[in-house]
Amino acid sequence: MKVLVINNLLKEKHKEQIRRTTYMIGGDVVFVDSGKDIPGDFEDCDIIYGFGIENAKKNKNLKWLAVPSAGVDFLMKPGIFANEECMITNSSGAYGVSIAEHIIAVSLMMMRKLDLVYRESLAGKWSSPRPQRSLKDSRILVLGTGDIGCSFAKRARSFEPESITGVCRSGRCDEEAFDSIRKTEALDELLPETDLLVMSLPDTPETRNVLSRERIALLPEGAYVVNVGRGSAIDENALADSLDEGRLAGAALDVFRNEPLPEDSRLWKTRNLLITPHVAGNLTLDHTLNMNVDMFCGNLKNYGNGLPLKNLIDRNKGY
Amino acid sequence: MKVLVINNLLKEKHKEQIRRTTYMIGGDVVFVDSGKDIPGDFEDCDIIYGFGIENAKKNKNLKWLAVPSAGVDFLMKPGIFANEECMITNSSGAYGVSIAEHIIAVSLMMMRKLDLVYRESLAGKWSSPRPQRSLKDSRILVLGTGDIGCSFAKRARSFEPESITGVCRSGRCDEEAFDSIRKTEALDELLPETDLLVMSLPDTPETRNVLSRERIALLPEGAYVVNVGRGSAIDENALADSLDEGRLAGAALDVFRNEPLPEDSRLWKTRNLLITPHVAGNLTLDHTLNMNVDMFCGNLKNYGNGLPLKNLIDRNKGY
Repeated sequence: MKVLVINNLLKEKHKEQIRRTTYMIGGDVVFVDSGKDIPGDFEDCDIIYGFGIENAKKNKNLKWLAVPSAGVDFLMKPGIFANEECMITNSSGAYGVSIAEHIIAVSLMMMRKLDLVYRESLAGKWSSPRPQRSLKDSRILVLGTGDIGCSFAKRARSFEPESITGVCRSGRCDEEAFDSIRKTEALDELLPETDLLVMSLPDTPETRNVLSRERIALLPEGAYVVNVGRGSAIDENALADSLDEGRLAGAALDVFRNEPLPEDSRLWKTRNLLITPHVAGNLTLDHTLNMNVDMFCGNLKNYGNGLPLKNLIDRNKGY
Repeated sequence: MKVLVINNLLKEKHKEQIRRTTYMIGGDVVFVDSGKDIPGDFEDCDIIYGFGIENAKKNKNLKWLAVPSAGVDFLMKPGIFANEECMITNSSGAYGVSIAEHIIAVSLMMMRKLDLVYRESLAGKWSSPRPQRSLKDSRILVLGTGDIGCSFAKRARSFEPESITGVCRSGRCDEEAFDSIRKTEALDELLPETDLLVMSLPDTPETRNVLSRERIALLPEGAYVVNVGRGSAIDENALADSLDEGRLAGAALDVFRNEPLPEDSRLWKTRNLLITPHVAGNLTLDHTLNMNVDMFCGNLKNYGNGLPLKNLIDRNKGY
């Protein structure tokens, strides 16, 4: 069994952990930096851990692609897999901590106007304080109650918000950090009662444009929006209009319809829009990388022992 | 009994609340914007709520000065009070929520390099992510376990740090958000085991220069410092040296030895130093202002009924 690992960020301890697990199940492993050539005898590998699309396109022997990301939308197009039966797993569960910290950070930056204060401090200006807002007593709505939404809700809880409501397809979720869980159908009713809207949705046909121009208009004046899921969930132009008009108080986007965000995008100049370059779930965070490798190795053991894989993607649902 | 209120930020509901309380105890009240003239018949007022130093200097009848701030160091110099027996109360307890949010915000901004990401985004740059750090698994040391330190610790707890240690003069504090509470004497032993040092100390002879050059050198490489108490607690030059050398990973200062920070201060140009202009406990936050007025009105009732005042300053201790 041949395991190909394509991940530049792995440290020696991670490689050792993967080596040990592979040998334990009687396999062989090779580590390749992304963009570099794959050794000839691994071109027909059984398993890839990494963003191995190039190999997947021609390798009919590929049985399992384990991606280090939570999102897998880029694998859902036709023609990606030479072997149509190839299993896909994602690394959902590794990013909750990092992305939850990001959401808290950007929400507080906006609410406390720290972006503006910082900008003036760069010019050596001791700027007058501006009216500040607070997570305390805020009504928080979280779209997507997976690992990320739950990890955020647990942290947000300690800031004593008025309420934290989760929204998911099924309306079910066992995370007690939410005051209530509602189905997606309730969105139009919930948006007008929202001070901070947090979006951590995968890209699927159902989530595309879920925050449409009409729904942005349902948010109350002075609301904030944070998106860490996928850019396709938001009508970016409508959001920019609402920010430029000053109706929304701020938005923090880590994901965009086009990444990197094109140089001529109007979003760069949109008022009160905090742009971060898809860094919320950055693998440079020790904890995230450790968990990512742990999860792959756990699954690799399962694979070797003929057990079902965790985080297996349902191609019909797209997540 | 004459009550003089000097506070520009009060809304009509706050004035109404103060009026009602004053009338209840048989007093009379007037509201004056700071810097504006005090009506002649209130120059000999009994009580001031606000920063009424000008009046305190000449009003021998002043019995109680209630300041809306937590810090009172500026009242500890000789010659401030015409009536040496005048009681002073502060508003400690009103700022915990706001300042705790500030500490979390600036800590995450630094650890996740959001200041740098934001700076590049202002120039329209989709900047490569840099190594990030996390509150998760961090060792946090909190100097000052009052309202602010405790409110911060409660919030920090939800980020799953490795430890949160509180340090105070007595070594006692009943806040369960701390893993342990130590006396100030243990500081030299604790600093080398600290990833994030949070300082929320009042200005007293004992806290001055508590973070000296020698103690800064005890912090491990890559540590972060946040100060929201008083600038006098830190040897600013030694801190700037350590940041410029890259030994410390970052510092966020909301308070300084000289405020506003002079235009020619080297701190404006110090590497990885996040400067905020004393805004952590800003009264523009609704919750903070409401609590501030609630606390004053509660004390005013006590005063009218001959009960002891809360938050009474001990002039010997200075807090």
